[in-house]
Amino acid sequence: MIPYKLAVRKDSSTIIQISCQGRLCLIGEGNLTVIAGPCAVESEESILINAALVKKMGAHILRGGAYKPRTSPYSFPGLGEEGLKYLALAKRETGLPVVTEVLDVRDIEKVMEVADLLQVGSRNMQNFPLLQELGRLKVPVVLKRGFAATVEEWLLAAEYIMSGGNHQVILCERGIRTFESSTRNTVDLGVVPLIKELSHLPIIVDPSHGTGRWQMVRPIAKAAIAAGADGIMIEVHHNPREALSDGDQSLNPQNFARLMTEVGRIAEMEGKRGVSCKL
Amino acid sequence: MIPYKLAVRKDSSTIIQISCQGRLCLIGEGNLTVIAGPCAVESEESILINAALVKKMGAHILRGGAYKPRTSPYSFPGLGEEGLKYLALAKRETGLPVVTEVLDVRDIEKVMEVADLLQVGSRNMQNFPLLQELGRLKVPVVLKRGFAATVEEWLLAAEYIMSGGNHQVILCERGIRTFESSTRNTVDLGVVPLIKELSHLPIIVDPSHGTGRWQMVRPIAKAAIAAGADGIMIEVHHNPREALSDGDQSLNPQNFARLMTEVGRIAEMEGKRGVSCKL
Amino acid sequence: MIPYKLAVRKDSSTIIQISCQGRLCLIGEGNLTVIAGPCAVESEESILINAALVKKMGAHILRGGAYKPRTSPYSFPGLGEEGLKYLALAKRETGLPVVTEVLDVRDIEKVMEVADLLQVGSRNMQNFPLLQELGRLKVPVVLKRGFAATVEEWLLAAEYIMSGGNHQVILCERGIRTFESSTRNTVDLGVVPLIKELSHLPIIVDPSHGTGRWQMVRPIAKAAIAAGADGIMIEVHHNPREALSDGDQSLNPQNFARLMTEVGRIAEMEGKRGVSCKL
Amino acid sequence: MIPYKLAVRKDSSTIIQISCQGRLCLIGEGNLTVIAGPCAVESEESILINAALVKKMGAHILRGGAYKPRTSPYSFPGLGEEGLKYLALAKRETGLPVVTEVLDVRDIEKVMEVADLLQVGSRNMQNFPLLQELGRLKVPVVLKRGFAATVEEWLLAAEYIMSGGNHQVILCERGIRTFESSTRNTVDLGVVPLIKELSHLPIIVDPSHGTGRWQMVRPIAKAAIAAGADGIMIEVHHNPREALSDGDQSLNPQNFARLMTEVGRIAEMEGKRGVSCKL
Repeated sequence: MIPYKLAVRKDSSTIIQISCQGRLCLIGEGNLTVIAGPCAVESEESILINAALVKKMGAHILRGGAYKPRTSPYSFPGLGEEGLKYLALAKRETGLPVVTEVLDVRDIEKVMEVADLLQVGSRNMQNFPLLQELGRLKVPVVLKRGFAATVEEWLLAAEYIMSGGNHQVILCERGIRTFESSTRNTVDLGVVPLIKELSHLPIIVDPSHGTGRWQMVRPIAKAAIAAGADGIMIEVHHNPREALSDGDQSLNPQNFARLMTEVGRIAEMEGKRGVSCKL
Repeated sequence: MIPYKLAVRKDSSTIIQISCQGRLCLIGEGNLTVIAGPCAVESEESILINAALVKKMGAHILRGGAYKPRTSPYSFPGLGEEGLKYLALAKRETGLPVVTEVLDVRDIEKVMEVADLLQVGSRNMQNFPLLQELGRLKVPVVLKRGFAATVEEWLLAAEYIMSGGNHQVILCERGIRTFESSTRNTVDLGVVPLIKELSHLPIIVDPSHGTGRWQMVRPIAKAAIAAGADGIMIEVHHNPREALSDGDQSLNPQNFARLMTEVGRIAEMEGKRGVSCKL
Repeated sequence: MIPYKLAVRKDSSTIIQISCQGRLCLIGEGNLTVIAGPCAVESEESILINAALVKKMGAHILRGGAYKPRTSPYSFPGLGEEGLKYLALAKRETGLPVVTEVLDVRDIEKVMEVADLLQVGSRNMQNFPLLQELGRLKVPVVLKRGFAATVEEWLLAAEYIMSGGNHQVILCERGIRTFESSTRNTVDLGVVPLIKELSHLPIIVDPSHGTGRWQMVRPIAKAAIAAGADGIMIEVHHNPREALSDGDQSLNPQNFARLMTEVGRIAEMEGKRGVSCKL
Repeated sequence: MIPYKLAVRKDSSTIIQISCQGRLCLIGEGNLTVIAGPCAVESEESILINAALVKKMGAHILRGGAYKPRTSPYSFPGLGEEGLKYLALAKRETGLPVVTEVLDVRDIEKVMEVADLLQVGSRNMQNFPLLQELGRLKVPVVLKRGFAATVEEWLLAAEYIMSGGNHQVILCERGIRTFESSTRNTVDLGVVPLIKELSHLPIIVDPSHGTGRWQMVRPIAKAAIAAGADGIMIEVHHNPREALSDGDQSLNPQNFARLMTEVGRIAEMEGKRGVSCKL
């Protein structure tokens, strides 16, 4: 009846440990994890500024795309290997672990040289060869929900990775596609308690893609934590108006600072360790 | 460009005042309002038990359906006028204001003898003759979002009521229909900050219909308040297993008590008056 | 397991007979029925022109809205009783039976004085008091599918009417709401064979609302008949650019003529009587 | 405003030519192309039987999956290279060109040794590295629409392939995901006239996946042609009850024969060459 064997609820929740430059960062049960950074790595200068910025404000993990899946072949596709190089620099400077998306099985090795966590994007949730390759690694995977994927399909995608031997999967809700067109996506926070009931895997929420509008990011980030999420992934840019992608949904530093304060309070109320990285 | 004139954002938010048996209950800006009670009025005894129960636990308004819209003509349609009589009794006993659904323009007068707020259900959000009749009244209307209605259509439905002269509209998100079938509906909490941006009308959330599973009601109620909602509407039953309708999504007294405590804490953190009824 | 009792497949399909001014019009099994006319009755002159036009081109039933459900309270709501008067005139002039929408239980009597078939619009598919009243009549009802209604809910809406004693229900698919926004709706032709399998009720398709773009109406009308539909409902206007509503999806006379020819050929191939009205 | 440059409507429609064992098969404007065969290549014997069967009944191209994208890691994933070998055999025996799915950029070379057309499945419509690799080839690509992809995204996926230099793209509608759960998918035939208006690329329809139920395949195949599609892709199995995947939506030989007759008649009426392969 339940088609998954490994992703299914276990007695104890998974806690994922990421060690980076001698420090330990935890994701899951009892920890609040904030992943933040720009949508794309745009330049060396820009990623260094943004990495320092999100670290200072308390983020635990740095995000930034070197390979960007873009709907149009004519949009900015990310800096690729050059972007990875800049990410490595930002990691060295800040000590923050890095999560970045991998689109292509042939890029995994390169990406792994830099990334502490690999991200599977929404469009690749059912890219089975990619999932299978990630299943052979020992690195945590952030598995975004397909924008039209059922919860069962999502857990089966996790199962693809886990059945290969890699049990370090972090689920990430990032909004689904509905008839509503006034927001980019419809964030489905109901999956947070649902996943908590069905599975022992950590679940985080990305309100930046989930809403597509920066004005909605802070309230939905707070709501995600109140619903029981283990963390949030937030797009932050030192100057959203000049962002090469997703500027509309990126927070500026002031708004990210406010988010951190308010989210921290809710996390504390929920009994979560407000700082999951022991620096 | 914005097709609504009255539902649109104003300088000051609407606060709706309900006076009942000499007391005043407020809905909107700065107040947390909890509406609770059974899905349907099932019997005199049952509504009295449940009304006393939700009052004791701090609910501000009693809900209970006398006229029930049912997908099948063979399901329990509610007790009708008899149900209204029992609601009147429960109101007298507890002093709680009452909200109940009106389905048929021909029932408005009867329902108004008992109800302090009239509810328009999801299936009637675009029942324009009903909206127009409600626009002629002086009673607050809880306008549930159609399960496949856009935000624009929802605000235009509010506009129907308001353009008739009745500006006391409370919007209620109760879940939308998506491809996901593991929950009854997909609760769309993104509309909370969106409505706050577009309109001055109060918005509340119904996590009972929004999720369809009692296990998810408490986390989503908390998330709704964290996202900025002005209140919640919760189905509570003293014995959910014996409920004539919606037992799966009804909280028992213990779980409702826990919800009230946890929701109260978030409301306080958000600077809301935790008790909106001055008793 | 099957929640409907009356709408369910029977040995013999229903054939609905409409007699109008001494002639007989059939809907169902083996007949192709074309319902055509303007979206709204706009004036005496306009409805007379359009009625004559669609009759000349072979339509069997005249459509035209006197009461229009409009998303905005500020849009043209139809001419109401005046519109009914003009419809009566058009019926007398052409001898065509008339179908028109009824929105409000209080209008049923008035509408019945003119209409040979009553239409329940998409937004009212679950307006249960309206369905119940129609169940007490002896007049055929065209029941449009709610734009987000499942097939089960649609058949249960038919069951509401039938359980009251009125078995003359014609189902009408008019497009559903999906994530696709390049067309007004997504016409779901899969329901045609599905309904034929589940139920003995006639099913027709409205490609005008189903697509929202006149360019798509002819191909989808043909597809509907090829899929097994018993008829089509088409918006036709002698001058679509000046239509007060739905001009974008209305065919002009030339295009309607072409549609009639091409649809007729497919109907013939399917063994349907191309002319269902014995004039 | 229109984000695609190459996929956009041109004066003349694309006709795709496939030459196989000295014969020529055409797809596009004025031709009806029937692609048929089993969901998966299950064994040497099975693919030979089915290939002979569909050839005899007039299919122009043989389909059969060697690499199957499966929601669960525990489902039959196809025979892989062994399946390709059997496909090559079936092609040699029947002379039919072969279309088969490619899931992984690393398999392209192997698949191209056998396949005359490469299929991109619904889940890979936005697998951009795969699309880019296919853009470098000279082989026609059948690009299935993502089950939640907008028409714009679909055409941009075609644009990814075309911008690499490969202009031989055939669009394939295979059903979208909606709230309706009584069928596997909702086939969207409205896209047929819409694509014809927007683009010069050929469009075919897959009613097997589009409906998920064999009873609905024939009516929807006919409807697709009536709506203007250039072809259909049909799952046929000599014994659907024993099929390793998708048995519920596969036609048995009798039903496929009936489909061919009825589809042929509509195609003829539409002025299409009923046989697009000059044998």
